[in-house]
Amino acid sequence: MSSASTHQAADLITEAVVRNLAGTTDERLKEILTSLVRHVHAFAKEVDLTEAEWAKGVEFFTAVGQMCTPTRQEFILLSDTHGLSSVVDVLTQNKPQGATESTVLGPFYVPGSSQRANGESMAEDDPDTPAHITGRVLALDGTPIAGATIDVWQTNSTGFYAVQQPGEQPAQNLRGLYTTDAEGRYHIVTVRPVEYQIPTDGPVGDLLRAEQRHPWRAAHIHAIVGAPGFERVTTHIFDAEKPYLDSDAVFGVKDSLVRTFSPGTAQDGSPIFTLSHDFVLVPAR
Amino acid sequence: MSSASTHQAADLITEAVVRNLAGTTDERLKEILTSLVRHVHAFAKEVDLTEAEWAKGVEFFTAVGQMCTPTRQEFILLSDTHGLSSVVDVLTQNKPQGATESTVLGPFYVPGSSQRANGESMAEDDPDTPAHITGRVLALDGTPIAGATIDVWQTNSTGFYAVQQPGEQPAQNLRGLYTTDAEGRYHIVTVRPVEYQIPTDGPVGDLLRAEQRHPWRAAHIHAIVGAPGFERVTTHIFDAEKPYLDSDAVFGVKDSLVRTFSPGTAQDGSPIFTLSHDFVLVPAR
Repeated sequence: MSSASTHQAADLITEAVVRNLAGTTDERLKEILTSLVRHVHAFAKEVDLTEAEWAKGVEFFTAVGQMCTPTRQEFILLSDTHGLSSVVDVLTQNKPQGATESTVLGPFYVPGSSQRANGESMAEDDPDTPAHITGRVLALDGTPIAGATIDVWQTNSTGFYAVQQPGEQPAQNLRGLYTTDAEGRYHIVTVRPVEYQIPTDGPVGDLLRAEQRHPWRAAHIHAIVGAPGFERVTTHIFDAEKPYLDSDAVFGVKDSLVRTFSPGTAQDGSPIFTLSHDFVLVPAR
Repeated sequence: MSSASTHQAADLITEAVVRNLAGTTDERLKEILTSLVRHVHAFAKEVDLTEAEWAKGVEFFTAVGQMCTPTRQEFILLSDTHGLSSVVDVLTQNKPQGATESTVLGPFYVPGSSQRANGESMAEDDPDTPAHITGRVLALDGTPIAGATIDVWQTNSTGFYAVQQPGEQPAQNLRGLYTTDAEGRYHIVTVRPVEYQIPTDGPVGDLLRAEQRHPWRAAHIHAIVGAPGFERVTTHIFDAEKPYLDSDAVFGVKDSLVRTFSPGTAQDGSPIFTLSHDFVLVPAR
């Protein structure tokens, strides 16, 4: 345990670093760096971080960085599983009553999904019962928004995104870019989402095991919804009948995003699920 | 700017994450993670971190991790240049009066330096005037310590460590493992250290430029000194006549580590520098 004089000596270093940040040209960057330096130093002092623990930390963050690829973002996984992503989400996405709430982006979003026609299935290689999600994209006052885009992605029934399984799944499986029609309507055809494990084969998985935490995400479909003149929203549709809604590994569940799929029948008599869901956008600020 | 209710919602997420850490088996790890999560969340709330800024942060830390190789540790460079390494150093290396003070390890230590005889030069490929550093390794009460090891490394006269220039410098240039004799004496032969720039070709260099900070380290020789029954000390010898002692880029200078090289003459009449320096170790705890 360190003495009071040791902590005073550590405080002098913190102040020296803050003085060295005073010349940062970008005022916002200066504010961010100063706050981050103060908090990280305060953390080290609070727990009396040892050199050996610091070295373990360096090793851990290095491993996180080296696990990242264009389709695997281990730092986002770390941020998601330790609530930082959700904190940033609620800080910056403070929506007015009635607007679709946002949630985390997650580490598996990759731009470039295929344009899909309304009513076209994005389940290119999944034998599950089709699920039809229909509804409108609306302004806060209920006005339909034509030409809004809905960028959708989810795992297949075994719990993996197409970008995680190149060669095993078609590259565009269970992802698609839908556009609303003149009445603001969209029609996604997919399968019901499943609960799945976030990847645990990297340093974040090791950390979750040390924390004795499960790696399951509640079943959900990702969507980024946008239209000219409106604020883009990154959100999920959670499946109300699947587990882990109360213990989602990335703290991403919001009650307003939970929906129930209903059993139904297609025109040819085959079983389907249906879900009606409107997305409500706020004007761009 | 976020509202008070937004901050309350963010606080609920912080508390949920802390509850999720409660099962961490290792009590010390639990203490460290809980403090770190609270401080990083508090930072995000304090500056109202936006999603775009969070994404830039993810990009930055990823680049830092991906810059790391077995001979380039960009996370240590980040920690050093932002004072965390020095904070950890003063927290954990609180030495009694008279003991050799510690300072940062730096990112260029690589184990495996060659054993050197006392009086053997480690300047395998440097034309500078030889510098003879002599002295003893002592216990706090002045008792000489025989068989103590001094693991020494420094840059060459152009400011690069051998591990930074494989193929250009001999692999063992300006590094060596010296051992004290029966009277606790050692005799390192090297060249005077030079001020040098820390590497600025990675993300930490970009950050220093954004901060308008110079990348210079005060001229120093690294040493790790150890002996059975004593606490190992990671330290520097700074050259009192070289610049940047007041603005070392990694906040590593301590007054007690600054020494003056004196001009002298070798037995053959050629010019040399000499420096007398004792290392004083504390008993292992």
